[in-house]
Amino acid sequence: MVFALESDGTPAYTLNYKTQAVIKPSKLGFELKDDKQSMLNGFEITRIDTTSFDETWKPVWGEVETIRNHYNEMAVTLNQKETGRQLVIRFRLFDDGLGFRYEFPSQKNLVYFIIKEERTEFAMTGDHTAFWIPGDYDTQEYDYTESKLSEIRSLMAKAVTGNASQTSFSPTGVQTALMMKTSNGLYINLHEAALINYSCMSLNLDDKNMIFQSWLTPNANGDKGNMQAPCTSPWRTIIVSDDARDIVASKMTYNLNEPCKIENTSWIKPVKYVGVWWEMITGKSSWSYTNDYPAVQLGVTGFSKAKPNNTHGATTTHVKEYIDFAAQNGFDAVLVEGWNVGWEDWFGHAKDHVFDFVTPYPDFHVQELADYARQKNVKLIMHHETSGSVRNYERYMDTAYKFMKQFGYDAVKSGYVGDILPQGEYHYSQWTNNHYQYAIEKAAQYHIMLNAHEAVRPTGIARTYPNLIGNESARGTEYQAFGGSKANHVTILPFTRLLGGPMDYTPGIFEMDISKINPSNNSHVNSTIANQLALYVTMYSPLQMAADLPENYNRFPDAFRFIKDVAVDWQDSKYLEAEPGYYLTVARKAKTTGKWFLGSVNGYNARTATISFNFLEAGKTYIATIYADANAANYKTNPQAYTIRKVVVNNKSKLSQFSAPGGGYAISFVEADKTQTKGLEKL
Amino acid sequence: MVFALESDGTPAYTLNYKTQAVIKPSKLGFELKDDKQSMLNGFEITRIDTTSFDETWKPVWGEVETIRNHYNEMAVTLNQKETGRQLVIRFRLFDDGLGFRYEFPSQKNLVYFIIKEERTEFAMTGDHTAFWIPGDYDTQEYDYTESKLSEIRSLMAKAVTGNASQTSFSPTGVQTALMMKTSNGLYINLHEAALINYSCMSLNLDDKNMIFQSWLTPNANGDKGNMQAPCTSPWRTIIVSDDARDIVASKMTYNLNEPCKIENTSWIKPVKYVGVWWEMITGKSSWSYTNDYPAVQLGVTGFSKAKPNNTHGATTTHVKEYIDFAAQNGFDAVLVEGWNVGWEDWFGHAKDHVFDFVTPYPDFHVQELADYARQKNVKLIMHHETSGSVRNYERYMDTAYKFMKQFGYDAVKSGYVGDILPQGEYHYSQWTNNHYQYAIEKAAQYHIMLNAHEAVRPTGIARTYPNLIGNESARGTEYQAFGGSKANHVTILPFTRLLGGPMDYTPGIFEMDISKINPSNNSHVNSTIANQLALYVTMYSPLQMAADLPENYNRFPDAFRFIKDVAVDWQDSKYLEAEPGYYLTVARKAKTTGKWFLGSVNGYNARTATISFNFLEAGKTYIATIYADANAANYKTNPQAYTIRKVVVNNKSKLSQFSAPGGGYAISFVEADKTQTKGLEKL
Repeated sequence: MVFALESDGTPAYTLNYKTQAVIKPSKLGFELKDDKQSMLNGFEITRIDTTSFDETWKPVWGEVETIRNHYNEMAVTLNQKETGRQLVIRFRLFDDGLGFRYEFPSQKNLVYFIIKEERTEFAMTGDHTAFWIPGDYDTQEYDYTESKLSEIRSLMAKAVTGNASQTSFSPTGVQTALMMKTSNGLYINLHEAALINYSCMSLNLDDKNMIFQSWLTPNANGDKGNMQAPCTSPWRTIIVSDDARDIVASKMTYNLNEPCKIENTSWIKPVKYVGVWWEMITGKSSWSYTNDYPAVQLGVTGFSKAKPNNTHGATTTHVKEYIDFAAQNGFDAVLVEGWNVGWEDWFGHAKDHVFDFVTPYPDFHVQELADYARQKNVKLIMHHETSGSVRNYERYMDTAYKFMKQFGYDAVKSGYVGDILPQGEYHYSQWTNNHYQYAIEKAAQYHIMLNAHEAVRPTGIARTYPNLIGNESARGTEYQAFGGSKANHVTILPFTRLLGGPMDYTPGIFEMDISKINPSNNSHVNSTIANQLALYVTMYSPLQMAADLPENYNRFPDAFRFIKDVAVDWQDSKYLEAEPGYYLTVARKAKTTGKWFLGSVNGYNARTATISFNFLEAGKTYIATIYADANAANYKTNPQAYTIRKVVVNNKSKLSQFSAPGGGYAISFVEADKTQTKGLEKL
Repeated sequence: MVFALESDGTPAYTLNYKTQAVIKPSKLGFELKDDKQSMLNGFEITRIDTTSFDETWKPVWGEVETIRNHYNEMAVTLNQKETGRQLVIRFRLFDDGLGFRYEFPSQKNLVYFIIKEERTEFAMTGDHTAFWIPGDYDTQEYDYTESKLSEIRSLMAKAVTGNASQTSFSPTGVQTALMMKTSNGLYINLHEAALINYSCMSLNLDDKNMIFQSWLTPNANGDKGNMQAPCTSPWRTIIVSDDARDIVASKMTYNLNEPCKIENTSWIKPVKYVGVWWEMITGKSSWSYTNDYPAVQLGVTGFSKAKPNNTHGATTTHVKEYIDFAAQNGFDAVLVEGWNVGWEDWFGHAKDHVFDFVTPYPDFHVQELADYARQKNVKLIMHHETSGSVRNYERYMDTAYKFMKQFGYDAVKSGYVGDILPQGEYHYSQWTNNHYQYAIEKAAQYHIMLNAHEAVRPTGIARTYPNLIGNESARGTEYQAFGGSKANHVTILPFTRLLGGPMDYTPGIFEMDISKINPSNNSHVNSTIANQLALYVTMYSPLQMAADLPENYNRFPDAFRFIKDVAVDWQDSKYLEAEPGYYLTVARKAKTTGKWFLGSVNGYNARTATISFNFLEAGKTYIATIYADANAANYKTNPQAYTIRKVVVNNKSKLSQFSAPGGGYAISFVEADKTQTKGLEKL
């Protein structure tokens, strides 16, 4: 990378990969509010500090046991001559990319300031192919569009699909992490790291010149950031490689975050879970308890006398069935949504006092279920839907977290469906981002693991606060019950959303025809069963759900076996094949058992590819159980056609494997001796 | 009062007093957002319920021991034909005026709705004289202007004086409580009661037709209220009389609030206090501890190593002096401002994390002062400045209240200086009003008395939550150190601000030349010492400060005697003379001792008036100590010239007493026998 001042003192940088330009000369700076001079130009370099850094750290959970954080650093100190203001731009150059951030040191001439817009440019070298979702202040739950950069403008309207809260801002605005591919075969990813006390960045494309410019999420009054020096921006990241596998394997985003700030992390544990959830998402059950009231008022509306609607999912009896199912099949926990009063009119009304997070419906017995779960050695996962009423949640947060500890819950799924309250604030503004961070840190105080849905997309903060074991912050499996997602969605997410942290994607759907669950819901799950199994490996997360209904798992016990077997925490990961939008194959070694698992997801085109098992330990023999698409399988027309076969393999074996459109395969490896391999095919 | 539907089904009302019209036909209704029909017209009357009510209740503190709540009620149920929506308008007619509110019953066709504007009219019968302050979403701290209604527009610009946060909205917008006088000698007051979960109302004048229309304070997005049926508006109040004394004596505003919701109120006690405050207000001392930092960051900035600025007021040593002074002079408590870290850059920067409410400066020893105060039988009053950062305060509120109880504080003064955070919200919007209410109710849970400054103007809520023992919410004494207030300000406040609840006006200034305290502050206090003494009686509050510095009281021990003697809680009150802008004379009987005190404040014109002491008990003899302006006294030129004389009086006595411009007098009565009255003048 090269840093230089332009002739008018505008800071600018370029980035090359090997012999190719990645970022053409791109300006850096800030437009400030009520400040004629701003921080755009008129700078001189007063100092350059260079250093290099090399450490290895152990994540509490992750794809690998240890992570190397190795970079060369250059901190350029700039002085704006006319104002005497200081600005430091710190660059960290890794093998897999560049991170840089703005730092505003403590100084006399710049104390408080308001960002009108951050003016960071990423000047592309051509009309790359991009995998993008529309820029939006309130939702990330879009399907990805693959197109040339020049096509974004014409494809935007179609890409903006409906959401409970959404605010798009530009016909060429897109979100990070943005994945691109150049005509020369370079893979480029733009994102940010360590988004703390700052507004979330989107990218706005100047599609004449193919220059992306940062576009921050505003506060209610249109300001884009209230800053007090000393302070820093998040890191702006450019991950680059000519091998797409390097992108998904990159740990740069985590490395640019602060080390873990939680001293004792022994209470943070990966979780495989089931939940009273898919039945509500599909419309078979309801979160709500009664249909008696057009609207409810907490503390006023009496539920004990209300007539049950008989569709309420979170009943004591039904939750016990889930606890039994979890216990029988080795799941750690059961998520229960819709247990607390308020769901009758839970979003879309700017209702401030929407939930109290501690009052159960009459048919949900907190103590009884806590006792039952404990007897069965299963944890219950708490659910805190906030409906975007941020202040209300903060008011109840201590009480709600204490309630959790009282009844043995150690993890919570939170949600922010609907517009943020107070109105005018957005899901990704500085003020709201500070709320998500507050929830993470307060949860840590209570030794609570957090999985926040509809919160701002993660930027590697889980390195610092590993109790953030999941986020949604993208289009999850629920959309398969809302009309379906693109069949290649899961081949893109690892290149985008997952770079910042794990996603509670909730895989494991076996019944793709949703009308079988709810006759009035004609949605189709655009995926094969084998593809669903592969997701437990390809979509890394320390929190993995088996999202389908127990009865659907009971129909396919052989396929379900993989979900029961697969690990959720890893010692090592090997990306074998990767092409955004098309396929991803990864093998992972479980942290405690040392067992290998492999997952491969496929895009729209049927595909047969050969992979090598050279990641296996030399000299050892394994039985590989391969859960694959049947030849006739197809995400749309024949999603439940799968085969399971056992073969004998070693680290010299190669597998040529078919994947159906929207399909894939999953493999579990078990070390075996000769008696066990007898009669099995050898690869 | 008369209610009628206009020909297009628009609800309207009129109000008469004796034979005079007070309110000409005035429309009622709501403009709703995204709702073509709104709730303005097309109504039919489906039901009228009338009732009458008569109760007597005992306030926990107040001007009188018992309050009669006596009204005739008419509830008009309206049906909007086209929409099938129900609206109830409930009128309560008292001897001293009319209150009415809108009620939205639970119904199918109106559940959630957004108020674009409340369209309540108050059509005046002529170009009345008004005592008004500019309508503003963020401050009430204006001097009153006396003018004809028709003159408001031309006088507005001058009336809008500077404030740390202010948002005016209309050249004919004014605030309630609005006091008016007609050319026929009628006194009319417009205000509201029970402002709960609703936006604060101002009034916008159509100065062609002399019609006031309600003008609500918007949320950040411009909406003026998010409602969920069943719900109600606050009461809109019209207090009327041909005797101005009835206005100040009216308890209608309290009567329109709900009865006390705090079961055990034994911990709520009137308080007379001194404080480390005036020295900061005048600029002699500072709230801040150091001048080392351009800005501080809580938890980051270290104060233990900072260089003290040597002007910090809240030091352990200095607070002990105040505790000693309080103990010696019979004060209940000492307020200490500037004790906690964060004052170096405390407002004006949209700084979210501005105070933590529990961390003292290094020179303020919480435990040592708690012990010292306890030994001296003096309470310390906590101070929570929030700088408008509402969320930050709520996050710390439990911790802060617990901290108070731990160290023996049972009352808190809170403050909201500067713009509300998150930005876009106003001081009086529904969202922010809900915060003030949250603070009141949470304080009640902790048995904490609350005195909120810069909060929304009170509307009688202290009936329901008597732990709200004070508010500022008007231009207080501090402005006498910021350039001065009008000399007749205190003759207007009882007709306006005080109708909704007590004001922490902080009277008792003896040194009117502020440069004597701080040579660089040339402000002058526009008041005489006798006027200052009278305020303890005329400005009813269960929380009364002696605001001046101890050394100034020590210079005038004979006048200070009245402040030491005067009660703060009353069994009875008699308004003897009243004319807004000109004078107010009130006698009050102390609740526990039965002693009478009298205060009289005067406007700009010197005045000699005769009052009767017929409120005294028949057959008893009293020594009246009269603290009065000397003949040469003048608020501007000679404010410290006072006389003190003792005279013998009984309930047949009359007093002809001179008051200087901006002056007044105060009297304490003590029952006496013959030996004590010997040699004293008899009235």
